Amino acid sequence: MNIVITGGAGFLGARLARQLLEQGKLSLAGGASQTIKTVTLVDRIAPPAALAADPRVRAVVGDLNELLASGGASQVVRAEDALVFHLAAAVSGECEADFDLGMRSNVDATRALLEACRQLGSSPTVVFASSLAVFGNSPAQPLPPVIDDRTLPTPQNSYGIQKFIGEQLVADYARKGFIRGRNVRLMTVSVRPGKPNGAASSFLSGMIREPLAGLRAACPVPPETAVALSSPARTIEGLVRAAQAGDAEWGARTAVNLPALKTTVGEMAAALERAAGKEAAALINWAPDSAIANIVTSWPATIDAARARALGLLPDKNFDSIIASYLSENPRTAPEAATQ
Amino acid sequence: MNIVITGGAGFLGARLARQLLEQGKLSLAGGASQTIKTVTLVDRIAPPAALAADPRVRAVVGDLNELLASGGASQVVRAEDALVFHLAAAVSGECEADFDLGMRSNVDATRALLEACRQLGSSPTVVFASSLAVFGNSPAQPLPPVIDDRTLPTPQNSYGIQKFIGEQLVADYARKGFIRGRNVRLMTVSVRPGKPNGAASSFLSGMIREPLAGLRAACPVPPETAVALSSPARTIEGLVRAAQAGDAEWGARTAVNLPALKTTVGEMAAALERAAGKEAAALINWAPDSAIANIVTSWPATIDAARARALGLLPDKNFDSIIASYLSENPRTAPEAATQ
Repeated sequence: MNIVITGGAGFLGARLARQLLEQGKLSLAGGASQTIKTVTLVDRIAPPAALAADPRVRAVVGDLNELLASGGASQVVRAEDALVFHLAAAVSGECEADFDLGMRSNVDATRALLEACRQLGSSPTVVFASSLAVFGNSPAQPLPPVIDDRTLPTPQNSYGIQKFIGEQLVADYARKGFIRGRNVRLMTVSVRPGKPNGAASSFLSGMIREPLAGLRAACPVPPETAVALSSPARTIEGLVRAAQAGDAEWGARTAVNLPALKTTVGEMAAALERAAGKEAAALINWAPDSAIANIVTSWPATIDAARARALGLLPDKNFDSIIASYLSENPRTAPEAATQ
Repeated sequence: MNIVITGGAGFLGARLARQLLEQGKLSLAGGASQTIKTVTLVDRIAPPAALAADPRVRAVVGDLNELLASGGASQVVRAEDALVFHLAAAVSGECEADFDLGMRSNVDATRALLEACRQLGSSPTVVFASSLAVFGNSPAQPLPPVIDDRTLPTPQNSYGIQKFIGEQLVADYARKGFIRGRNVRLMTVSVRPGKPNGAASSFLSGMIREPLAGLRAACPVPPETAVALSSPARTIEGLVRAAQAGDAEWGARTAVNLPALKTTVGEMAAALERAAGKEAAALINWAPDSAIANIVTSWPATIDAARARALGLLPDKNFDSIIASYLSENPRTAPEAATQ
């Protein structure tokens, strides 16, 4: 089996690739287990060297829209590719600051990728990474207390709208038989290693990661802010499970919400203190930022992920266990970004 | 005030134009009543001659995508246009038969129109005609017994997906302040005068209109099929009300379902018999067509149109009153299409 991962050089994409290459096999859409022959990583940057060194890895470096433009689609998806994880996206903060960038990166690129998959004629499986950000709270339309798989998304930022449009495209390309579609809504991933990014939720990793490296970190929302989180491991587990599920097992073409741990930013800080002491927690700089807070506090925190649960997917146990996983995977040294 | 109607030469667009020109004034988005100076009708065909003869009417004939392509947008919307009704669309049957046509006509053209409105910098009001077709029943995700304004759309045809994507675009362009957005979901309009069209719902007019003209008409679904209908007059009323409503009165940027009369195809035939006798009803040819039936029976019939009700919009009383209105507006002569 040949697999494509867009955004394959990013944190989640590279981690997904490593896991797939390690396991070496995958059962796709309810079928028998098959050996993974190649993993194509499509991204604007080259994949990490260790990953690129695997002979099964094929790196395609470039802007997804440009790569997919006339004639170039075969670089991204080939006739032999049976599974595409579409993770590439402009993140929430960027999309809110630059509307056109978001439309290009999240709507146009998704449509072009689906069109390239359709042109293969082989109906490949496409796992689309949508987001919790499709749900947004507003005075005119408050969110219900609990979000489930049938809750009407009411996005309050462009990123959420664009991801929700992507879900619709995936659903209809799947209904038409052009692809086998798997719409998966990712929760906020924490703790991400590495550098901060332009996501409004970036601080939800930074406020743990930076203090663990002895660095100050900003928290732009009040401690009582409730959030729905998923560790990197649980998030990857959800993406892989989506690829494995058969059509009947997966069910409706609308998106499946992945499970989330509901916690608060204050509880996260308390878990940091339990894991690394008062001095670490004191490195959090509680500095309100309304631009970020407006986005993050519009997202829901209580998710009833019934379809995911039926697929055997469960949330992280608590935030202490998330920090413990992070520490086991990332020794306590200063992250790259902070030293630049 | 200057008004633009895309699809302005079509049945609904021309009727809307006539009504606006007759009333001569409109209060826009909660503001004071203003004199209507021009009504621009954008369509692939020229408007009816009687309408074109009104000195306030400006006709722009062409394909919306082509008109809106680089440089030509100012033909469609001008700096002085304060209100745009976006009715132009490829219909459901066409979109299911030709996926690319639907994407171009319903997604690309809508986005290009919104972009042209954004470029004006004046945040015009855009009333977007979405559709009941965003709701679709499927075995994997049965529709709830009653559809309300917060029901998750699960479209089961490309037209419904494309209209739902249009709603998302309108919502985000509105949230960003590029336009003032009004997403309105139209019910199936019956009885439409004139010719059959490519909509899967076309027979819901034809099965009344043709027999009233002494002609046979096909009904491709069983008599017990429940449908949600709105007369032309009630439908236009909903569109105009959307333009008039102030932001707070309108509420959330998600779509408002217009009110619908719930009836069955069999009850429609019975009303036809009451209005025009047994010989008229006998002209209905009950001939199942699974392609049409699959689309139409996936749509819901029971709509709780709470937001519309709060705006003072009510459904038609019964189908007899719809036929009576049709007869008062359309003398009993053979329709144009049937004589060709």
